[in-house]
Amino acid sequence: MTSTEFDRSRCSIAGTLSVVGEKWSMLVLREAFLGVRRFADFQAAIGAPRAVLTQRLATLVDHGVFERVPYQAEGQRERLEYRLTERGLDLYPILVAMLTWGDQHTAGESGGPVALQHDGCGAKVGLTLTCADGHVVPGPRAVTPVPTTPAR
Amino acid sequence: MTSTEFDRSRCSIAGTLSVVGEKWSMLVLREAFLGVRRFADFQAAIGAPRAVLTQRLATLVDHGVFERVPYQAEGQRERLEYRLTERGLDLYPILVAMLTWGDQHTAGESGGPVALQHDGCGAKVGLTLTCADGHVVPGPRAVTPVPTTPAR
Repeated sequence: MTSTEFDRSRCSIAGTLSVVGEKWSMLVLREAFLGVRRFADFQAAIGAPRAVLTQRLATLVDHGVFERVPYQAEGQRERLEYRLTERGLDLYPILVAMLTWGDQHTAGESGGPVALQHDGCGAKVGLTLTCADGHVVPGPRAVTPVPTTPAR
Repeated sequence: MTSTEFDRSRCSIAGTLSVVGEKWSMLVLREAFLGVRRFADFQAAIGAPRAVLTQRLATLVDHGVFERVPYQAEGQRERLEYRLTERGLDLYPILVAMLTWGDQHTAGESGGPVALQHDGCGAKVGLTLTCADGHVVPGPRAVTPVPTTPAR
């Protein structure tokens, strides 16, 4: 089978990239998974220009990744904070996969600054390639991409 | 603990994004995992402008994701093809995570065009969040990010 049999116009990777395929969007998500919810805190953490951050957050809200929820700090006007929806929480494996690769291949000998700890037992969290029958899959060489509809 | 205790200057997600954090790069990787190796085939599959594709491939070679390997088609001059290195193959979970999210959240009712099939048993392949002690981790709410070095 050649790769040209796939219908790329419906590609789910391209679909995902249309929502989060941009550096600032991904850094916003990193912060959201670290617990950040407010515009000023996102800006302080990632250093994006204000206009860029505003646009990225709006896009992520439009795509249902964040919902805006009002909050009011003592003595201040009401503002909106950004909370991950279930759809947004489902992005977590993408972030974990990027963290893992970065730890292995870009962080150098000192390693990355963050470890993900399982609340249940304290052990380090990562991703395992598995199949629906419960096998651990050793890697891409043990996987074949197949079209889900007949090729044209 | 607040999120500001992390040393973002060493962030592994940002490290990963500096290598593959751009739409065309990610689409090139998608094709590579589908078996594409040659410039003309990458171009035909993803439709990137020639100059952009040239630059993205060069960047991925510079970062050790691809290696250039000479090949010669019958009656033609020698050319170079692009093969994923081990470092490149390690990017696979990022692509699988993006495919999975797109299948769930952008593909619509018809689903995505590609399924990943385990060669060993034919079952569908995906990612499972696990910990080093062998537990299946239900999601980000069961994970705490912790600094790997003392906060400043």
